[in-house]
Amino acid sequence: MAKNAFELLTLENEVFKAYLFWSAVLVLKMLFMSLLTGFMRFRTQTFINPEDILDKRIKVKYDNPDVERCRRAHRNDLENILPFFVIGFLYLLINPDAKLAINLFRACAISRIVHTFVYAVVVIPQPSRILAFLVCALATTYMALQVALTAL
Amino acid sequence: MAKNAFELLTLENEVFKAYLFWSAVLVLKMLFMSLLTGFMRFRTQTFINPEDILDKRIKVKYDNPDVERCRRAHRNDLENILPFFVIGFLYLLINPDAKLAINLFRACAISRIVHTFVYAVVVIPQPSRILAFLVCALATTYMALQVALTAL
Amino acid sequence: MAKNAFELLTLENEVFKAYLFWSAVLVLKMLFMSLLTGFMRFRTQTFINPEDILDKRIKVKYDNPDVERCRRAHRNDLENILPFFVIGFLYLLINPDAKLAINLFRACAISRIVHTFVYAVVVIPQPSRILAFLVCALATTYMALQVALTAL
Repeated sequence: MAKNAFELLTLENEVFKAYLFWSAVLVLKMLFMSLLTGFMRFRTQTFINPEDILDKRIKVKYDNPDVERCRRAHRNDLENILPFFVIGFLYLLINPDAKLAINLFRACAISRIVHTFVYAVVVIPQPSRILAFLVCALATTYMALQVALTAL
Repeated sequence: MAKNAFELLTLENEVFKAYLFWSAVLVLKMLFMSLLTGFMRFRTQTFINPEDILDKRIKVKYDNPDVERCRRAHRNDLENILPFFVIGFLYLLINPDAKLAINLFRACAISRIVHTFVYAVVVIPQPSRILAFLVCALATTYMALQVALTAL
Repeated sequence: MAKNAFELLTLENEVFKAYLFWSAVLVLKMLFMSLLTGFMRFRTQTFINPEDILDKRIKVKYDNPDVERCRRAHRNDLENILPFFVIGFLYLLINPDAKLAINLFRACAISRIVHTFVYAVVVIPQPSRILAFLVCALATTYMALQVALTAL
């Protein structure tokens, strides 16, 4: 723990650069879910708010399976990627081994992109989704344990 | 990139002050959604948990449109405001142009307040909600791209 | 406000250590919700995606009350714990009174663990859940107000 925050949070620190890059990628990936859900709503004409319907012959609908699948994938992102942002940043601040940290960030980001793909873009049979979920969940758990132990 | 994190994360930095202020406003706005949903549940007597019902003649209900509208607005906040918090902070750390950054934070915050108003307080016809959504989504996308490019 | 970010974000700062510890605990608690929901899905054989079903005699189901209860508890975490992570960190950066800050972090974390317990593990009658909710919501509101006032 020789390093201070001002040495960790600079672009000279490769771990910080990796965190910046993969976090930005995951934010873009999450925003893409809104686009995908919107696209599915238009394609299947499934609108949940009366004010969203242009063609007045269409009624409000709640339960299109393709739309709901996108929404579940998006919610799974909220449940997993948002905690990753927090714990990844705190892990960075406890000055971890650079190589390990960079690979953890990379693994989380790539596994969450795979998760979205196999869940909401092209449905691929299990265990693809559960494995993609587990990579990020286990990496997040490891980082959280490291952060908690360091703080004790 | 002359500045270090310890110069960026002080109250002398106007960008940091703007981030602090608008983030706090958005946190309060998000907490308000819980209040609004609770209020709607009481007004429409729509309770989703048996243990929440005082009057035993009332049954558990799931599908009141006003309650569900509040919950959708709240979920939309989770999907958009939480990634904004993350990317806004990282954008701040790459030392952006002060005027642009302050205006991006302000635009995101105000557009999300407008989004809540037109979605869940007084329903205003489209395209009001989609425009409010887009202002924050596009600003977030811009910041994410800048962060990713800086990290490369 | 004598301290700079690089003095605040070190393990010499007790407030930072408390934030690290309780944030890590809450991240682990949130990840536990996924486990709990998965466990409930298996126990009640309630699968929402066709590709998750091994036994082909089982049909997709949406509305098991135990599964939905876990999902509501998890969503309530997203609505409350994620804003806490953000505002707790910003509150830390405005150099608050150490004792107060440490107790606020502790109160938020413990109340959210209690919230999960009384909502999704062993259902305990109200007002247990509303009180657990309020402790964290009020502490978060207080911190947000302090951050906003400091930034002004």
